[in-house]
Amino acid sequence: MNLLYDERLDGPLTKTDRQTLLAEMRAAVPDLEILHAEEDLRPFECDGLSAYRAVPLLVVLPARIEQAAAVLRLCHARRVPVVARGAGTGLSGGALPLEQGVLLVMARFNRILELNPAGRCARVQPGVRNLAISQAAAPYGLYYAPDPSSQIACTIGGNVAENAGGVHCLKYGLTVHNLLKLEVLTIEGEPLTLGADALDAPGFDLMALFTGSEGMLGIVTEVTVKLLPTPRVARVLMASFDSVDKAGRAVGDIIAAGIIPGGLEMMDQLAIRAAEEFIHAGYPVEAEAILLCELDGVESDVQEDIARVRAVLERAGATEVSLARDEAERARFWAGRKNAFPAVGRMSPDYYCMDGTIPRRHLPRVLKGTAELAEKYGLQVANVFHAGDGNMHPLILFDANQPGELERAEALGGEILELCVAVGGTITGEHGVGREKINQMCTQFNPDEIGCFHAVKAAFDAEGLLNPGKNIPTLNRCADYGALRVHGGKLPFSELERF
Amino acid sequence: MNLLYDERLDGPLTKTDRQTLLAEMRAAVPDLEILHAEEDLRPFECDGLSAYRAVPLLVVLPARIEQAAAVLRLCHARRVPVVARGAGTGLSGGALPLEQGVLLVMARFNRILELNPAGRCARVQPGVRNLAISQAAAPYGLYYAPDPSSQIACTIGGNVAENAGGVHCLKYGLTVHNLLKLEVLTIEGEPLTLGADALDAPGFDLMALFTGSEGMLGIVTEVTVKLLPTPRVARVLMASFDSVDKAGRAVGDIIAAGIIPGGLEMMDQLAIRAAEEFIHAGYPVEAEAILLCELDGVESDVQEDIARVRAVLERAGATEVSLARDEAERARFWAGRKNAFPAVGRMSPDYYCMDGTIPRRHLPRVLKGTAELAEKYGLQVANVFHAGDGNMHPLILFDANQPGELERAEALGGEILELCVAVGGTITGEHGVGREKINQMCTQFNPDEIGCFHAVKAAFDAEGLLNPGKNIPTLNRCADYGALRVHGGKLPFSELERF
Repeated sequence: MNLLYDERLDGPLTKTDRQTLLAEMRAAVPDLEILHAEEDLRPFECDGLSAYRAVPLLVVLPARIEQAAAVLRLCHARRVPVVARGAGTGLSGGALPLEQGVLLVMARFNRILELNPAGRCARVQPGVRNLAISQAAAPYGLYYAPDPSSQIACTIGGNVAENAGGVHCLKYGLTVHNLLKLEVLTIEGEPLTLGADALDAPGFDLMALFTGSEGMLGIVTEVTVKLLPTPRVARVLMASFDSVDKAGRAVGDIIAAGIIPGGLEMMDQLAIRAAEEFIHAGYPVEAEAILLCELDGVESDVQEDIARVRAVLERAGATEVSLARDEAERARFWAGRKNAFPAVGRMSPDYYCMDGTIPRRHLPRVLKGTAELAEKYGLQVANVFHAGDGNMHPLILFDANQPGELERAEALGGEILELCVAVGGTITGEHGVGREKINQMCTQFNPDEIGCFHAVKAAFDAEGLLNPGKNIPTLNRCADYGALRVHGGKLPFSELERF
Repeated sequence: MNLLYDERLDGPLTKTDRQTLLAEMRAAVPDLEILHAEEDLRPFECDGLSAYRAVPLLVVLPARIEQAAAVLRLCHARRVPVVARGAGTGLSGGALPLEQGVLLVMARFNRILELNPAGRCARVQPGVRNLAISQAAAPYGLYYAPDPSSQIACTIGGNVAENAGGVHCLKYGLTVHNLLKLEVLTIEGEPLTLGADALDAPGFDLMALFTGSEGMLGIVTEVTVKLLPTPRVARVLMASFDSVDKAGRAVGDIIAAGIIPGGLEMMDQLAIRAAEEFIHAGYPVEAEAILLCELDGVESDVQEDIARVRAVLERAGATEVSLARDEAERARFWAGRKNAFPAVGRMSPDYYCMDGTIPRRHLPRVLKGTAELAEKYGLQVANVFHAGDGNMHPLILFDANQPGELERAEALGGEILELCVAVGGTITGEHGVGREKINQMCTQFNPDEIGCFHAVKAAFDAEGLLNPGKNIPTLNRCADYGALRVHGGKLPFSELERF
């Protein structure tokens, strides 16, 4: 394993002066839009995870691929780190700038280059918004399936970088399952084509490798996405429960009955009340938990599935099951869910959204564990999440102005993620690792596995210039983190001495 | 890019004496079954692509993971190449032994370790047969979707190595889309876990990277596969056409109508006649082409789709459309298709099965081009393939006893694959690159892209000990191949001088 790269990941490689780099950038890429004044840089200091902030050396906004390639060549030559950014909606700090780095904003690449209804695919630039793809495909009866809650704003380039999910990924998969081909630039500014227009591609599956790599292997310049036929009918069932535990068990029962819903979401009482107060979705505010179960397909199929799911829910102890009467009510049910994060945000000065995934069968156990941890830390936690695929989103409420609360929230979040790992889950389902969960990567993987990530990283970016300090921790960082915390012997830290 | 590895790929790294290695292997792994006598080695000299043969130094058959790890450690220390093998049914020579290498047969790892109906997954050893997984899951109403024609014999470890497909991958995806987790051993004998039991896994997607990597990155020791609910109804439509062209267009029309069949297969006259004579499937022997279209799901849904597909087929000019009356007729229709390769084999002393994929819209063009190339080379070609996902399987008939015919068949196959690449397709859909298509990789990828593959390979196996000479060509090989052939300027061979 090539571990040479390891030591260089955590910090900037060279100290570069802003004015010097600006002059060089202007000389190398004459018509490039560059932001360099403090007040112009400030809006880019964070992405959707605003707890972490840093003002970059420069922000560059290329409009042509040659410009992006020239930026990369210059940064490579000067050993200046590069962080790519789409719409900045990411929730794990994946696009957090580096004070000693260039922020490469891909927002200008916002054209849909080709819509191919017969081939059921679209070729788009990375700055195209997620929802814009489905809107452009709608006249052909097609859509792009992954639908993060931020789909109005987030861009497909960012979706690829984070392997984004959404309500419908239970049935239709994550971003990686809905791609055919990527065009990327390496840190040397070289173009590469990954994947193919046709089924499968020979050689190693570099397209999948790049998807979710958080801008650490290359910069995406074009994405060919798969399009699916828009389901002709979609109906939503809402079930109320008098305990979170029963709702959690019902999720497993639905899946075990052989039904794959388009979406299967759960909200607990705190989330239900917050959403109802904000959106007036028609949620039962007395319920301890609700499940929203969307069934899509052709009419007769959906009718049959509704009857089966209703029966499963009633057997599982639902106190009430109601079917959205019409499209307007269905939209309201979903509006409550899709706005649950800001709704909870209204109840508390700050909130922190986690993103662990677990095998579905452990839902009741992890919900119970989360409640116990919340009590231990004296913080409130709302649960609103993709129950069908075991993707938890505990929202930790806190007040950053109260001394120590942010730290308590972070510590609670860390323990929740470690609980996910302990039951065989992972520390992220769809938000990525970014800056946020880099310590928890030390819990998720052993040093050999982290060594593999570094070796792959080094194959594409030996100097560690692309988004350093995100996604993959150094082994030194894991050693430090391990020294500070008790891991119950899960990690073989003695192994670290080898490196 | 790390290209150091490049020079070492094509040949064995050290000359090792069989007796010396045998003695060392016996000492290092005392209870390991080792084959070393010429007559015991001979049955392993090729996989399903018998045109290439080589007798390995030793064949080892570990029964425990520690044994496999010890074999790898010894080979790594002695710089002896290792080729892994499952059932040996592969069609691209991916498990072709090396005369100076050890053949690591994983057939003894044949246990289903866990069947988890609630989690819809199964944890199995790599030597478990593909069909055995579905058989074990059947009592729970579940099955494993990818179904290569060799599914009775082929093993899941080989499926992972080649990213195998099958009739149903149009709707349900390739092997990579139906996996959750892999346990692997590196060439150093270190265990790694790739992927996770839960949705998504953080870090780089090494599970996808390993899937289809043809044993060049590590050895699979355990596979967790996804299981799907068995469709409650499956019906098959058979449509006859008086021209291959019309059948090819009908394929695109079905997909464009928003229907995703469970399978959508095409056979041309040569294949129809061969299959009918062999299996008596009830095929129309006068037709120039037939399509078999399977629709699966719930009864009402399937009924509706049948009506829609029938209408599309009639508009596309089908001369006859018939629905399999019952399960027995459906099984007969598929038996003809699944036995088409051996059926064609009865018509000719030898045949050579190609495996290119193309964007569906180019089906008519590529079928016409294939016919023209067949005429140019004076050889017969039968077409029987996964039309729905553009995965062509031209079967080239030849007689290896006629001087020069094998070479003509190989040259024709190469040109067909290059035609696939020229229309935006790839040189393999589901059979892998192996030894067979290594030259065509030079057509598919440019030197920078091949450089990336080598860099990734070097991250896991810097000495190039795992299955050298397969899948990824050296740039030297591409240069030699380029020097021998005219590529119409498609490849920037001048670029090669850089390396």
